[in-house]
Amino acid sequence: LKVLITGAGGYIGSVLQAVLTQRPEVAGQRVDAIALVDRVLPGAAGPRRVAIEGDLTDSAVLERIADFRPDTTFHLAGVPGGASEADYLVGRRTNLDATLALFEQLAQQRRDADRAPVVVYASTIAVYGTRLPPVVKQETPLQPPLTYGAHKRVCEILLADFSRRNELDGRTLRLPGIVARRSAGPGLTSAFMSDVLHALADGVPFEAPVSEEATAWWMSARRCAENLVHAAGMDLTGADPGRAWPMPVLRLSMRDIVNTCAEAFGPDRKSLVAYRPIESVEAVFGRYPVLDDAPSRALGLLDDGTPLALVLRALGREA
Amino acid sequence: LKVLITGAGGYIGSVLQAVLTQRPEVAGQRVDAIALVDRVLPGAAGPRRVAIEGDLTDSAVLERIADFRPDTTFHLAGVPGGASEADYLVGRRTNLDATLALFEQLAQQRRDADRAPVVVYASTIAVYGTRLPPVVKQETPLQPPLTYGAHKRVCEILLADFSRRNELDGRTLRLPGIVARRSAGPGLTSAFMSDVLHALADGVPFEAPVSEEATAWWMSARRCAENLVHAAGMDLTGADPGRAWPMPVLRLSMRDIVNTCAEAFGPDRKSLVAYRPIESVEAVFGRYPVLDDAPSRALGLLDDGTPLALVLRALGREA
Repeated sequence: LKVLITGAGGYIGSVLQAVLTQRPEVAGQRVDAIALVDRVLPGAAGPRRVAIEGDLTDSAVLERIADFRPDTTFHLAGVPGGASEADYLVGRRTNLDATLALFEQLAQQRRDADRAPVVVYASTIAVYGTRLPPVVKQETPLQPPLTYGAHKRVCEILLADFSRRNELDGRTLRLPGIVARRSAGPGLTSAFMSDVLHALADGVPFEAPVSEEATAWWMSARRCAENLVHAAGMDLTGADPGRAWPMPVLRLSMRDIVNTCAEAFGPDRKSLVAYRPIESVEAVFGRYPVLDDAPSRALGLLDDGTPLALVLRALGREA
Repeated sequence: LKVLITGAGGYIGSVLQAVLTQRPEVAGQRVDAIALVDRVLPGAAGPRRVAIEGDLTDSAVLERIADFRPDTTFHLAGVPGGASEADYLVGRRTNLDATLALFEQLAQQRRDADRAPVVVYASTIAVYGTRLPPVVKQETPLQPPLTYGAHKRVCEILLADFSRRNELDGRTLRLPGIVARRSAGPGLTSAFMSDVLHALADGVPFEAPVSEEATAWWMSARRCAENLVHAAGMDLTGADPGRAWPMPVLRLSMRDIVNTCAEAFGPDRKSLVAYRPIESVEAVFGRYPVLDDAPSRALGLLDDGTPLALVLRALGREA
C-alpha cells in the first residue's frame, strides 16, 4: 500500500509519521511506501520514504503526487484559522484551491485503478460555529464563524461529492483542539491549549486567555494520528453519505486540565495559573457544548479515555 | 441604483429583465442602469442597459463588471444539473470557479464603498437531496445528490462567509422547478415540468416521465423573478447567518397539474397525458415532501397562490 501525507512536516503530520513507522499498516494492509509533502521536511529521509518538498499550490508538487500514485492519502496541509482570516487569499489558495486540486488529481488516478483512492481529510470543529445548541449532533446545522471553517466545510462537501461519484473514497474527520505542540507560533489562536500543558509540566507560570470554566474539546496528537489511520480502513457501509464525522472528544474545562496537571506533576502546579480571559478567545474556544459523538464511536474512533491519559499522551509521557 | 444580472439571456434572466423594465425599482431605490451578462444577449439594447456579451469564466468579462460597479447583483448564470454531472469540469468552471471569482470581484469593490454590494444568488432545491424527511425544515441536513447541487451548496457557504466578513451582502434563494420555459434542451432533466404546461395549453399529447402521484415543488418564472427582486431589499436583521432560504412553493402532483390545466383549457386535456415513469426521474423530481417555508414567508417571499394562478402565470396568460 502506498500512502501520501500532506502537511507531513507539521505537528500532526510528524506524529502520524511516527505512528506509521511504529506500525506500518493501514486498512489491514502493509505500508510499502510513504510520500511526505510539505514546504520543509526535516528528517524525512528513510527507507520506504519519498520526500516531496514544496507547496501543494505548486502544480509541480501535484505532478509528483500523480507519479507516486497513492492508494491512501492523509490530507493534513492547511493554513490555520487566524492566518486565513487575516489574509483571505493565503487561506483560499491552500485550504480551498490546493485541496480541490489535490482531490481532482487523485480522482484522475481512479480511471485506471481497481478502486477509488482513499482520502482521509483533516477538517476541523471550526465548521460548527459558536452559536451551538446544548448538544451538538450529526445533524446540527453548521455555521462556520471564520473563513477557515467555511473553506474546510466546502472541501468536506466536495470530497463527499467525489465519493458519491466513486472517484474518491473520502473520509472527513473534524479535529478538535489537538495537544500539545510546542510554540505553535502566530495564526493559531488555540495555541494556549498546548501551552498550558507544557508550562505546567515544566513548572513555569501560565497566563490563560480564557476563564477557569472555559470548556473545550481535547485530544492528544497521538490519539488523533491513530484515529486518522483508523479512518482509512473504516467500513462505511450504510454510513452517512456526507462522510464527515467529529473525532470523539474529552470535553474539559481549563479547571479540569489544571487539576489533572496537578495530579500528574504536583499540587503546586495550580498556583502557576493566572486567568486573564479575552472575550474573543473565550467565545470561540471556551464554550464548546456536549458533543454527541456516538456515530464516530460506532465507526471505531476513540477519545483519549481519561483526562490523565490525555495529558500524559499529549506530552509524550505515556507509559 | 446600478443592477447586474448574470445569465441575463436565460429563461429566468429574461423574465427578471421584463419585471425590472415594468417596475424599475430594487430595495426601494430607482434602477438607473442594468448591466446584462451572458454568452448571447439578443435584444439587450435599450435605455439604461449595458450588454456584456461573454462568459463569466472570462476575466475580461469580470473586468467589465468591475468597471460597471453594480450595487446589486442577481447571479443567475449556471450550468444545469444534467450537464454538470456529465462533464465535471464544465460544471465546475461556471458553477464554482466563476461564481467565486464574481463574488471576489464584487467584494473588492467593497473597499471604497459605503456598504457591501448586495448579491442575490440563485441556488437550487437540488442542494437538499433525495433522502428527505416528511417535512423539510431550515435545519434539515443537505445532501446534494449531484455535483450541480454540491457546487451550489458550496457557493451558498462562500457567499455567507463574504457576508459575515461584511464584504458582500448575500441573499441566497433556492429555486424550485421554475415553469414554463419552451424547449429547454438537453441537460435539464426537469424540463418535463415546463413541457406539460405548454403541451396541455396547446392541446397536444404529452408523455410524462413520472407517475400521476409524482409530487414536486412548483413556481412560475414570473413569481420567481419577483421574489429575486424582493430578496435584494429584505431586512435581514436577526436572520439566519447562513443567508439561504428556499422560495416558498406550491407542492403539487402531476395529477394536480393536469387537473388544473383541464380547468384552465378544457376537460379534454386529461386524455392527452400518458404516464411513462422513469425511475431515475421519479426519484429526483417526483418525491418532494412538504417544505416548511415559514422562514421564507416571514421575509416576504411568496408562492404563486393557487395552482390555477401558477399555470396561467407560468404561460404568461395572467389577467
